[in-house]
Amino acid sequence: MKTQFVSDTLGLAAQRKVSLAGWIANRRRMGKVIFLEICDSTGSIQAVFDKKESGHEQFELAKRIPPESAVEISGDLVERHDGSKEILAKNIKIVGLADLQISPRPRSDFDVFNEKIANQLLSYRHLYLRNKKIMAILRFRSLVMGIVREWFAANKFLEFDAPILTPTPLYDGSTAIPVEVHGDSVYLTQCAGFYLEAAVHAFERIYNMGPSFRGEESRSKRHLMEYWHIKAELAWGDREDIIKLVEDIIIYTTDECQKRGKDILSTINTELCTDGLKVPYPRITYEDAIRHLSKNGFSDAQFGQSLSSAEEEKLSKMFDSPFWIVGIPRSVEPFPYSIDPSDQRITMVADLIASNGYGELLGVAEKIFDPDMLDERLKEKGKSEESRYQFVKDVHHAGCVPHIAFGMGVERLIRWLLNIPHVRDAIPFPRVVRRRIGP
Amino acid sequence: MKTQFVSDTLGLAAQRKVSLAGWIANRRRMGKVIFLEICDSTGSIQAVFDKKESGHEQFELAKRIPPESAVEISGDLVERHDGSKEILAKNIKIVGLADLQISPRPRSDFDVFNEKIANQLLSYRHLYLRNKKIMAILRFRSLVMGIVREWFAANKFLEFDAPILTPTPLYDGSTAIPVEVHGDSVYLTQCAGFYLEAAVHAFERIYNMGPSFRGEESRSKRHLMEYWHIKAELAWGDREDIIKLVEDIIIYTTDECQKRGKDILSTINTELCTDGLKVPYPRITYEDAIRHLSKNGFSDAQFGQSLSSAEEEKLSKMFDSPFWIVGIPRSVEPFPYSIDPSDQRITMVADLIASNGYGELLGVAEKIFDPDMLDERLKEKGKSEESRYQFVKDVHHAGCVPHIAFGMGVERLIRWLLNIPHVRDAIPFPRVVRRRIGP
Repeated sequence: MKTQFVSDTLGLAAQRKVSLAGWIANRRRMGKVIFLEICDSTGSIQAVFDKKESGHEQFELAKRIPPESAVEISGDLVERHDGSKEILAKNIKIVGLADLQISPRPRSDFDVFNEKIANQLLSYRHLYLRNKKIMAILRFRSLVMGIVREWFAANKFLEFDAPILTPTPLYDGSTAIPVEVHGDSVYLTQCAGFYLEAAVHAFERIYNMGPSFRGEESRSKRHLMEYWHIKAELAWGDREDIIKLVEDIIIYTTDECQKRGKDILSTINTELCTDGLKVPYPRITYEDAIRHLSKNGFSDAQFGQSLSSAEEEKLSKMFDSPFWIVGIPRSVEPFPYSIDPSDQRITMVADLIASNGYGELLGVAEKIFDPDMLDERLKEKGKSEESRYQFVKDVHHAGCVPHIAFGMGVERLIRWLLNIPHVRDAIPFPRVVRRRIGP
Repeated sequence: MKTQFVSDTLGLAAQRKVSLAGWIANRRRMGKVIFLEICDSTGSIQAVFDKKESGHEQFELAKRIPPESAVEISGDLVERHDGSKEILAKNIKIVGLADLQISPRPRSDFDVFNEKIANQLLSYRHLYLRNKKIMAILRFRSLVMGIVREWFAANKFLEFDAPILTPTPLYDGSTAIPVEVHGDSVYLTQCAGFYLEAAVHAFERIYNMGPSFRGEESRSKRHLMEYWHIKAELAWGDREDIIKLVEDIIIYTTDECQKRGKDILSTINTELCTDGLKVPYPRITYEDAIRHLSKNGFSDAQFGQSLSSAEEEKLSKMFDSPFWIVGIPRSVEPFPYSIDPSDQRITMVADLIASNGYGELLGVAEKIFDPDMLDERLKEKGKSEESRYQFVKDVHHAGCVPHIAFGMGVERLIRWLLNIPHVRDAIPFPRVVRRRIGP
């Protein structure tokens, strides 16, 4: 097993014999000297091949091995004038040849967000993962997920894995991806909510982080067909509670990313968006939102329509912090969410719109706990005769209590925090519409 | 938001007015006194309704509210002769009625592993989640997953989410569940391995914890069609390294479960299996295994056949610790795993068989890193012409290094550690063959 990483080597005293396993990130030649940049997951170091030191054969090998190949290098660790270290190489051994060469080279330095090469980067995602900026984004993803889990653990939420295959779509069937499993017609989950609702009556505070699927034919920068969804439910709470809870999570996540993400951010060459620290977030009503869109000539959205991604992006520029849209119409929202007792046209849902034009970040809601209201809403959505929702009804007839929920796409959160153009960059292998994984 | 839980109430001084929100877990009547057991996610406390204290109306209500209903109770906290506390109740208010009554009642005390009621427990899993033994098992699941993540973080493994929808089945297509997504024919992932293999050439140490799918028509106690899979890959290692790594994880997990799982284990009324602490685990060859099975009349397995679950269970009783089966034939194992250089009939795969008859727990392997060996194995498995494996080939032609992997089902680990009969009890909503979720 490899025990000596590049970062360990850089920490050693100079004038020591070292050997190192890694990949050739780059090669330059200046006269009779060859410079190889050797990298691994921890960083990179320069190995210098001078014919006088390495001998002719090793020098020729260093000249010839294609970049991106895996190698073992040995030599002396020396200190340069500027205090940095390099390896005066004696030997090089090929471990794995890179006889497949693609352009740009994965480990080279290029703009990973350049739309002109987006197709190439997606086709060879399995190799471009090695790019240090792409690696940094995926490290950030892991950091964020870990921080969110910490928040949940500290607040006594139990991790609860809802099923992926489910008989119950959240929205209408057209955006649900159907699967046939041994004669059983099911869907890929659109939302863990039905299962968390059952479980919250046991555990009171639960969350789920797992894959979720939306079959929409959207090519927006905010949509993936397969994404990771953070969902949480809490028993005995109202909308103010869930709004407060979400603001807490965003503050905690932003703060901790600031503390622990410095190296990652500098590798990506971006700054963390800290707009989420400005709590409490402003609130506007859905009616204010459509009025704003109409007054400024952005759209002619009418009450009762879903706001489009483009409209949300416009709204997103109204404030320099995230903000809530409350009072979203019942026609827009799926059946599980409560109706506002003071205005039967609207729900107790609120959507959080990110700053900087990033659009919707997440939604929160009071969920229905009264079985009669559930029946009414199922009927309104044309689902009351469907036996597959029976288990949802059961939960409402078995000691149901006021409960609240939120749901947030991991990739949207990452995109917003990192100021990156597209959610597809925030997941290892993005599934975007009509775009296979692989070449 | 609820701030006062049962466990908080039990910690208060007696002779204090308290109010509490929870569910009626049980009701008894003794003469003119009604005892309600009020529970929430943190525990339970007895509320006593004495007509003299509560008045006639509240007493009648307490008598009438169906068990499992959600209520708010208020009264005085008093200490009993034995030092325990109860509430001398003044008021009870219904929050959510349980007008759906099922038998056994979810919050009552019954044998959750009784096969005679297994069908009922699966049909109403959405309500039986409230049973305190079932809750304890799911808490244990969350504990184990957290502990495993800790181990990975401490050992510098990056969390990496592989896709669920994939063009590449690991085994033959018959056990892969097909999905059609906007004209693209894909499968539900059987294994994150292809993606981790790409990523390990960037991050060197990665792991994935996520859902995985096997379409087999198996009704064994060890199979779920949808389960959670812990997968890890490490660059620059050999089989000894991955065996050592797995033994480390099992020791750490067992140790930490022992330290942190006491309450959970006592609720389930089981003892933690600590057989995993006896490292290093014994090793037998696949040929020894079939010889043992044949000699003892357990089976007539021939070299080159997969061991069945029943055979693995028999083997599982050979040792009082987990043990490794090495030298598994190439005919049995899928193409990504290396062939033993000293014996071309067998692979560099090893399976870990759990103690106590629990059968296979996990597998480890050296994976192929030589592109020619990959081609040979793809051909042998009839996959060499399939373009969907092209991205796997690419990785082998782009500086591939020796790498190792392991994969373990979360539910099998839990079943073994807790000594519970069936993997279906170790996941919130089990999908077993021909068994829908819900009634």
